[in-house]
Amino acid sequence: MKKLIKNGTIVTASDTFQGDILIIGEQIAAIGLNLTENGAEIIDANGCYIFPGGIDPHTHLDMPFGGTVTKDDFETGTTAAAFGGTTTIIDFCLTEKGKPLKDAIKTWHKKSKDKAVIDYSFHLMISEINDQVLDELPSVIEEEGISSFKVFMAYKNVFQADDETLFRTLLTAKELGGLVMVHAENGDVIDYLTKKALQEGKTDPVYHALTRPPEVEGEATGRAAQLTGLAGSQLYVVHVSCAEAVEKIAEARSRGFDVWGETCPQYLVLDQSYLEKPEFEGAKYVWSPPLREKKHQDVLWNAMKTGVLQTLGSDQCSFDFNGQKDLGKGDFTKIPNGGPIIEDRFSILYSEGVSKGRISLNQFVDLTSTKAAKLFGLYPKKGTIAVGSDADLVLFDPSAERTISASTHHMAVDYNAFEGMEVKGVPVSVLSKGEFVVRDRQFAGKAGTGQYIKRAKYGEQLGTAGSSKVSI
Amino acid sequence: MKKLIKNGTIVTASDTFQGDILIIGEQIAAIGLNLTENGAEIIDANGCYIFPGGIDPHTHLDMPFGGTVTKDDFETGTTAAAFGGTTTIIDFCLTEKGKPLKDAIKTWHKKSKDKAVIDYSFHLMISEINDQVLDELPSVIEEEGISSFKVFMAYKNVFQADDETLFRTLLTAKELGGLVMVHAENGDVIDYLTKKALQEGKTDPVYHALTRPPEVEGEATGRAAQLTGLAGSQLYVVHVSCAEAVEKIAEARSRGFDVWGETCPQYLVLDQSYLEKPEFEGAKYVWSPPLREKKHQDVLWNAMKTGVLQTLGSDQCSFDFNGQKDLGKGDFTKIPNGGPIIEDRFSILYSEGVSKGRISLNQFVDLTSTKAAKLFGLYPKKGTIAVGSDADLVLFDPSAERTISASTHHMAVDYNAFEGMEVKGVPVSVLSKGEFVVRDRQFAGKAGTGQYIKRAKYGEQLGTAGSSKVSI
Amino acid sequence: MKKLIKNGTIVTASDTFQGDILIIGEQIAAIGLNLTENGAEIIDANGCYIFPGGIDPHTHLDMPFGGTVTKDDFETGTTAAAFGGTTTIIDFCLTEKGKPLKDAIKTWHKKSKDKAVIDYSFHLMISEINDQVLDELPSVIEEEGISSFKVFMAYKNVFQADDETLFRTLLTAKELGGLVMVHAENGDVIDYLTKKALQEGKTDPVYHALTRPPEVEGEATGRAAQLTGLAGSQLYVVHVSCAEAVEKIAEARSRGFDVWGETCPQYLVLDQSYLEKPEFEGAKYVWSPPLREKKHQDVLWNAMKTGVLQTLGSDQCSFDFNGQKDLGKGDFTKIPNGGPIIEDRFSILYSEGVSKGRISLNQFVDLTSTKAAKLFGLYPKKGTIAVGSDADLVLFDPSAERTISASTHHMAVDYNAFEGMEVKGVPVSVLSKGEFVVRDRQFAGKAGTGQYIKRAKYGEQLGTAGSSKVSI
Amino acid sequence: MKKLIKNGTIVTASDTFQGDILIIGEQIAAIGLNLTENGAEIIDANGCYIFPGGIDPHTHLDMPFGGTVTKDDFETGTTAAAFGGTTTIIDFCLTEKGKPLKDAIKTWHKKSKDKAVIDYSFHLMISEINDQVLDELPSVIEEEGISSFKVFMAYKNVFQADDETLFRTLLTAKELGGLVMVHAENGDVIDYLTKKALQEGKTDPVYHALTRPPEVEGEATGRAAQLTGLAGSQLYVVHVSCAEAVEKIAEARSRGFDVWGETCPQYLVLDQSYLEKPEFEGAKYVWSPPLREKKHQDVLWNAMKTGVLQTLGSDQCSFDFNGQKDLGKGDFTKIPNGGPIIEDRFSILYSEGVSKGRISLNQFVDLTSTKAAKLFGLYPKKGTIAVGSDADLVLFDPSAERTISASTHHMAVDYNAFEGMEVKGVPVSVLSKGEFVVRDRQFAGKAGTGQYIKRAKYGEQLGTAGSSKVSI
Repeated sequence: MKKLIKNGTIVTASDTFQGDILIIGEQIAAIGLNLTENGAEIIDANGCYIFPGGIDPHTHLDMPFGGTVTKDDFETGTTAAAFGGTTTIIDFCLTEKGKPLKDAIKTWHKKSKDKAVIDYSFHLMISEINDQVLDELPSVIEEEGISSFKVFMAYKNVFQADDETLFRTLLTAKELGGLVMVHAENGDVIDYLTKKALQEGKTDPVYHALTRPPEVEGEATGRAAQLTGLAGSQLYVVHVSCAEAVEKIAEARSRGFDVWGETCPQYLVLDQSYLEKPEFEGAKYVWSPPLREKKHQDVLWNAMKTGVLQTLGSDQCSFDFNGQKDLGKGDFTKIPNGGPIIEDRFSILYSEGVSKGRISLNQFVDLTSTKAAKLFGLYPKKGTIAVGSDADLVLFDPSAERTISASTHHMAVDYNAFEGMEVKGVPVSVLSKGEFVVRDRQFAGKAGTGQYIKRAKYGEQLGTAGSSKVSI
Repeated sequence: MKKLIKNGTIVTASDTFQGDILIIGEQIAAIGLNLTENGAEIIDANGCYIFPGGIDPHTHLDMPFGGTVTKDDFETGTTAAAFGGTTTIIDFCLTEKGKPLKDAIKTWHKKSKDKAVIDYSFHLMISEINDQVLDELPSVIEEEGISSFKVFMAYKNVFQADDETLFRTLLTAKELGGLVMVHAENGDVIDYLTKKALQEGKTDPVYHALTRPPEVEGEATGRAAQLTGLAGSQLYVVHVSCAEAVEKIAEARSRGFDVWGETCPQYLVLDQSYLEKPEFEGAKYVWSPPLREKKHQDVLWNAMKTGVLQTLGSDQCSFDFNGQKDLGKGDFTKIPNGGPIIEDRFSILYSEGVSKGRISLNQFVDLTSTKAAKLFGLYPKKGTIAVGSDADLVLFDPSAERTISASTHHMAVDYNAFEGMEVKGVPVSVLSKGEFVVRDRQFAGKAGTGQYIKRAKYGEQLGTAGSSKVSI
Repeated sequence: MKKLIKNGTIVTASDTFQGDILIIGEQIAAIGLNLTENGAEIIDANGCYIFPGGIDPHTHLDMPFGGTVTKDDFETGTTAAAFGGTTTIIDFCLTEKGKPLKDAIKTWHKKSKDKAVIDYSFHLMISEINDQVLDELPSVIEEEGISSFKVFMAYKNVFQADDETLFRTLLTAKELGGLVMVHAENGDVIDYLTKKALQEGKTDPVYHALTRPPEVEGEATGRAAQLTGLAGSQLYVVHVSCAEAVEKIAEARSRGFDVWGETCPQYLVLDQSYLEKPEFEGAKYVWSPPLREKKHQDVLWNAMKTGVLQTLGSDQCSFDFNGQKDLGKGDFTKIPNGGPIIEDRFSILYSEGVSKGRISLNQFVDLTSTKAAKLFGLYPKKGTIAVGSDADLVLFDPSAERTISASTHHMAVDYNAFEGMEVKGVPVSVLSKGEFVVRDRQFAGKAGTGQYIKRAKYGEQLGTAGSSKVSI
Repeated sequence: MKKLIKNGTIVTASDTFQGDILIIGEQIAAIGLNLTENGAEIIDANGCYIFPGGIDPHTHLDMPFGGTVTKDDFETGTTAAAFGGTTTIIDFCLTEKGKPLKDAIKTWHKKSKDKAVIDYSFHLMISEINDQVLDELPSVIEEEGISSFKVFMAYKNVFQADDETLFRTLLTAKELGGLVMVHAENGDVIDYLTKKALQEGKTDPVYHALTRPPEVEGEATGRAAQLTGLAGSQLYVVHVSCAEAVEKIAEARSRGFDVWGETCPQYLVLDQSYLEKPEFEGAKYVWSPPLREKKHQDVLWNAMKTGVLQTLGSDQCSFDFNGQKDLGKGDFTKIPNGGPIIEDRFSILYSEGVSKGRISLNQFVDLTSTKAAKLFGLYPKKGTIAVGSDADLVLFDPSAERTISASTHHMAVDYNAFEGMEVKGVPVSVLSKGEFVVRDRQFAGKAGTGQYIKRAKYGEQLGTAGSSKVSI
């Protein structure tokens, strides 16, 4: 019931210091120098950083896509997440036009219940705005605790919403206290370029990237940001991959618009050349937006450093190379989009970001955990190391090294997009609400212990001393 | 020797939570829920925020200027600072061309010793770069613990350094681990406009503002930022007052340059019209850069919110209205520049920023304390509430209100620039290294208890677990 | 058959000089000092500027709109144009989805034949791209001499094309040598804001402006420009009204995109406050995009001065106040959009631009005539004063003054949007192909003398000495 | 006394058409189709473009520099210019501090009198502003016809003026009707980088470029532009070489500042790698600003195309490789700056610009002649082909080709920076004021026939019909 983690270096989004952490039950009870506590299990964290458990704000588990289903479900997906230092995920609940939103939410609860080994929550996709949807949304926020809504500007004739839907979602979110998330790519242009490529016999994986160039992401990002400013609402741009999009977010923020941005590990370390790998191996690297030319990476890093981008999501969406990705042999549009990355998000940012001096330790924590908690209404329960917060903690050995590989990973897929990459820093042990899920790199958790978390409205966590509204 | 502060809402640059703080000796020993400790004095902070003591990175105490001397010395100045919630100041040590830097440092130690009621440190002004200066600088950093250097681009024929001096200071700072600070206004243009105004008989205080328009600040800020990028060095722009300068800092940061910016309370709430007050009262509002038109204020607030500006300094530089400011009657150039603000910096930012929803509580802490600690090598001793840090704390009642007035302030001057302003939130009690300096709005400190702090190099506070360099 | 215009000051897009012009038949045969010619009628232009006849690249004559038809047809419209110094118009030929493009062209030929008093040509609206349209387009360009295509990003469910249509039109135009024109406003957002305003009982004319704010124009302009850059094609943005759109065009041009912009007189001298006129009079000022706040005017003038905007169109689209505009009483969406301006375009730009020192004489000629001729394939037949060009000339008295009024104008409508405006400079006489259409302010033309002009492809006028392609 | 040029294609800054040109005496008397004239010498221009004679707004002839003197004087320099299609130059008259401006002007008249084969004028360098200079300037403009003033922001301790001098020159020029020209590089930074390079034994020519990187040009250009905006004056930035400077000019223009820019052929076709040529040959390519990396060239071309840069100067400043350039062996700072380019300016822009489709024929004329005439008060006497203008004409065969070489050039120096470059288009014959200076590639002129031209004030050429002030 009690644990005392001693001698670690505690890191939050703003602080780095040595101290002991006392856990009583599910929460952090005290942080101090040389703490002692009767009956507490002593855990030695000497030489380790102690980070708040990661929050992955962008996952797709057990999700149908293009006639198949992602390989990782809530059990394998959250298990892998935990191994990687992540203790909370927010998964995207997909809706269907014409059907009640709550049906979709029910479906997602069914997918996740009794499976998750860490806590989880849901974002809700919005594909249309009509009276029924408007009627349902208040209770989605108030009762279901879902305060973030995803709109797709791409995937024409599938998920794509028109500008009126986006604009109305922004207005509605403003009124109700929600945060609108966009997949920002111009679906019309992509649709045409794709059809044209196929007509011309261009069927290899690399055409996935060539038919959705950075300009279509930049355009859509700018469009969404401008509509947000006009609506006086708030926007979160998922999976920002390129300079064109970063510029638009920066400009919106400089005008005082409430616009936020997320990037993903794949855009920081992989590039478009991966799609050209022979033997159809390029299909492993098919994400939307696609991997970009290497020059975009510096822009993304600087955007994280200067606060233009605030979070790192995984966009976990895993498909086997054999049997799923290969549905797209001879037609790149049939390659299921996405990849397995939930497990390595944390490590890659630490290794490439902190170890290489591109971002600070505290920025690392903010990007992997704290800011997502604040933006999505999980804070202060999640997202930091503070007394009263859930004891979701990662003991991270910065001097250890690890090689990423499908042969050792815990995701259910048959490949790893970062195969062979050496990362500095290893999440040795991971606690969720005071209990080990991973201990000394061994699984110590249990399916079903992860619980669904209802989230607060955008910008409305309760503080105590002063005003009731704590902004981000 | 031991204190236990109970029931407060603790706020850091990233976190807000309820908890108790145990102080043993000068440091914070533990933070926890329902802490108990034998022999500890219990302090009830119910209903209060507990903030890290403010760090004012920009003060001029006991400083000669234009034939007179600032009214506040290290005793009155630090006393007023403490009443306002500030527990550390960094004062500017002025050098003279041709004389050893250490002579100036000695002079400043003499001014401050046995006087300060809170801790303090020094920045060093650089007015020339020559072999002697280059010889001295390493020991200034290593032995004196002074790692920040101020260069003036204005005050022609007085403090103004040429671009070669600025550029070489940037290169030297990069090599030695220093941070270059600039007063960014084009002194040449100001000098001409000033002479011309006087020739034309324009002698009233408002001409102080009209002869140093925003463009001269924008130009100089851009110039300094570009030289910083070229040098690959780091820059801190003091007292940013206008949109023109903010744009230049934002652009530099977007290019990956290591450029930081500070603004001051006067630019956030006062404006150029104050200089037009009759009966020479405009002289009270003579700062350099001058107060700007109201439209600049929104730009400054948004720049703080989005991280383009990171700190709030006071630029404390106080002169009596009667006997000092009036030296400039009939000639605005003889009005001593500056004003009394060290005491109200903290309150004004809270009241106008947090209470009015422009910035978050955590941003408030970052702006008033944490970021300055990190940029200037005081962290983690100063700048946060964490175990192991100095117990420099402010108990702040967010529901109390206060009217700013010279009749109640603790500065030695005969007026207050914010006279009559109502602020929401009052720093009730202030501790420095575990001892009350202010208790229940009564002075509880003692001259001489404040100590000189040697600061670490730029970006080189020790972390423990991983790499030895903790970036900002 | 021969005319000799003596003693005028000839002005082209680059030159201003005194000289005589000899006209033989329809063309200019010589320009010289003290020319003589047997048998030529002598016309004294002493004290006058001689300008190339204006080209109005943006008119809607005899056009059905919202259940009514514009008041001016090709006879009254071109007569008024001639009085105003315009000798060529390019009218928009509206197509219908699912019908052959040539049907629309035939209809437009029927409307104009035997009516026009000056030469004219057509742009073609593109509302869909499909195999039939793609099949027809080459002959539209080659045989009909129509090389410019208009796409609407607004008027949802009426004219509005989706982004795929716009993008494909851009690609097709690039391939065939056409220039794509866009009405750049986000029709989705406007549609929603409009419905919402009506629901809230906001039915007055001013809501026309408030439901299509500058942001929706800026967004659409940026979107079109980015798609143009991606397509490597060329774009002409019609009726630019605001700073937001100017910025996007400037940015596109700085990136090397082939993007051009047109503004209209109404945006230069009228503003949003006109829509608030009582007694429903605001309806007279309903254009799309709407009139903007006054601050946008300086931006438009500077954009013309610096070449970010290159042409001035009238967007002539006239409806009577009584009987047409008043269809929108009680519902601003039913107010026919547009106004009578074909007659005063030239005078307003001269008076407000040249007389007030905002643009040069030569820029005036370029904006009202030359650049349109070059962009739309009319040059060198039209658009300049050079030997071999059509003798389309305006004798313009810069010292005369005139008051704009419905009581004296030649348009068929019952009001003038510039009623009472004093303009400096009067087009005294106007020649089309060597014959007077207006002489000493009296009509001297004849319906049916104006001819349809087939235009060259974009950028493909023949030069003689060198390469066959003369760029703009 | 009379000449009739038949069958050419006449090109002005806005027009391209076929026609004949009648010259009577020094001026153009008529332009027409199939002109005839008794007693006129017939010149057949079939297959040729006829351009206005080039105006080179930036030459240094017979100029002392660094202990030596430029190789070309007013005789060889203007002869070479004429061969290249240039019929007017504006040379920089250097002043000395403390001496009357008129002494310098006298010296320059002495250098040029009886030598020039084409017309010429002078700009005046301003190195200080004091009462004597202010007293003299009005008569310099009114009597000497010199209305443009050059200020150097580089060459520390030699030509460099401080910001006060630049700002006062801007204010004075505004008042008197002058145009301020700047050499925009930060001389302080260059001075330091240069000294440092030499200390480190970096003495080769390439260090000339490495010690004056694009950032120092960008910074100074931005500074000058901002001071111009503040002064409400006008600025002409000479020899713009890089993207950093172009951005600053574009930004100033977008804010409505009256800022103009010139580039030079060397920056369009050569690049920094030339300075690395072995055997000290890099010294041939030492200009200030230096040649840049290749990527800057596209930016310069687009800036000309979009009107951000308006003129092309040669910055002719020639020194022999043997005997002059080699003064800098072992110390790049002793290499005389500049090169021989007066002869090939015209050809290079045609060949690389027009032939390769980067700019239009009309833009070519504007860049090489018309805009300089307008900016510097030579228009309409110079700068165009119009009746009444000087018959300064170039018969240019666009189909002929030529190889640039020192073995055939007419400059007095022993090398050509463009040695071996093939250019398309040859200036076959050149007339100055109606007389051949070059005829069929043979010299036909005579030293001393070129005359000094007094220039009008900035923006004040007389038009006739309307207002007396014709803006640019």
